[in-house]
Amino acid sequence: MNTEKEKMLAGEMYNPADPLLVKEREEARRKVRIYNQTLETEGEKRIQLLKGLLGSTGEIVVMEPNIRFDYGYNTHVGENFFANFDCTILDVCEVRFGDNCMLAPGVQIYTATHPLNPTERNSGREYAKPITFGNNVWIGGSAIINPGVTVGDNVVIASGAVVTKDVPDNVVVGGNPAIVIKQIEL
Amino acid sequence: MNTEKEKMLAGEMYNPADPLLVKEREEARRKVRIYNQTLETEGEKRIQLLKGLLGSTGEIVVMEPNIRFDYGYNTHVGENFFANFDCTILDVCEVRFGDNCMLAPGVQIYTATHPLNPTERNSGREYAKPITFGNNVWIGGSAIINPGVTVGDNVVIASGAVVTKDVPDNVVVGGNPAIVIKQIEL
Amino acid sequence: MNTEKEKMLAGEMYNPADPLLVKEREEARRKVRIYNQTLETEGEKRIQLLKGLLGSTGEIVVMEPNIRFDYGYNTHVGENFFANFDCTILDVCEVRFGDNCMLAPGVQIYTATHPLNPTERNSGREYAKPITFGNNVWIGGSAIINPGVTVGDNVVIASGAVVTKDVPDNVVVGGNPAIVIKQIEL
Repeated sequence: MNTEKEKMLAGEMYNPADPLLVKEREEARRKVRIYNQTLETEGEKRIQLLKGLLGSTGEIVVMEPNIRFDYGYNTHVGENFFANFDCTILDVCEVRFGDNCMLAPGVQIYTATHPLNPTERNSGREYAKPITFGNNVWIGGSAIINPGVTVGDNVVIASGAVVTKDVPDNVVVGGNPAIVIKQIEL
Repeated sequence: MNTEKEKMLAGEMYNPADPLLVKEREEARRKVRIYNQTLETEGEKRIQLLKGLLGSTGEIVVMEPNIRFDYGYNTHVGENFFANFDCTILDVCEVRFGDNCMLAPGVQIYTATHPLNPTERNSGREYAKPITFGNNVWIGGSAIINPGVTVGDNVVIASGAVVTKDVPDNVVVGGNPAIVIKQIEL
Repeated sequence: MNTEKEKMLAGEMYNPADPLLVKEREEARRKVRIYNQTLETEGEKRIQLLKGLLGSTGEIVVMEPNIRFDYGYNTHVGENFFANFDCTILDVCEVRFGDNCMLAPGVQIYTATHPLNPTERNSGREYAKPITFGNNVWIGGSAIINPGVTVGDNVVIASGAVVTKDVPDNVVVGGNPAIVIKQIEL
């Protein structure tokens, strides 16, 4: 019989009130709070704190406060990861970035979701779907990435886009819901 | 003759520079600042602070910092209210939630508005329209609810939706402006 | 031969890792952090801090924390400037507001951009385009203004709008991407 954490990571319905999960979210909030209180001059300390928060990182990882995470350890970023001010990553399931990914301010990445049926939703049980980004992805400001989406290599997501479906390699997507608006020449 | 506060609550043009209203907004900002400085381990303290800020709540009310309110006392939430990170409620007029409502991160609820005519707007006088949510409403991340909107029971508002019109019971709405995209089977 | 700062301000490709620019962004972050820590009772101190951060202001300038800027000195606001909670201005190139401009919460103004080609983007060199607003502009909550946009006098930008093109005088724009949805009678 699987634990609530195992169910959560597998994308199955799970109980977020499980004591281990409550404790892990509280620990992530503590780390995030400490991170968001660091100074603009403490670049090296910030890198070390991010390496202690995220599941894996490259050598260089930069995120401008205020950051938000559910667990932190479910987020994996490649080399040269940069996120501008105030990005939120609800990493209930895994969030994976390739190398050279850049996030503009206010980007929202949501693996967490709930049943549409109100009776099921009010049970308090919920689930999540992983999100994956290829290499060289640039996400514009305040863009939203919905649960379960896979984004290809070299993709540019326009500011304010709401990405609800998978995105192939080498395109610009934009709008709400986001659609392909341009091919990128390599 | 009505006071500025009475006009404000009635949805009439009012002067926000009225000394009582200035003082009440300052008091709300003080309470909000103290709330946003609480620790992730202070769940019980957070509930008590929210009960001292909002107009009315159920027994359980959870909001993840940073919260933003104009007055606080104009916001009424039912049982089992949950708001994830960084939600903003401009409660110049009343904002009412039924039971079992859930807000994802970054939800924006705006009762406040201004005249479209620039001369009227530059007078500094402004107005607001109440916003009402039924029971079992789930608002997706970074969704925006505009002044005067009434949202029915069991509604799901998609992430990034901009809700400009009333929403009937038992539907999913999404897009900008938001439209009905699915019926919910009960 | 131009300095990196000169290239940046001219809208040309430049290197943001230039030591002077790194130092200037750090200085802006320091000022912004101090500003965001001021109390709701410190209105006069806030005005003085904003006058020390921005390129130019009128006599009255109000911004509700948390504010975000890249440089601050590239942002110029006219008389009676008001920005509600949590506005972000990436002022890599100049951002200019006329008189009597009002920003609702969460407004995002982005002069900064990057090449679409991933190889060029990964070089780390980037560029920006100035943004200009006329007089009496009201920007709705969480609206996004993209690089290079010029917005006319008396314009109202609807909440959640993503403004990707120039906007003429005396109109309401909304949607993603934003289009003209109404003429304003003067």
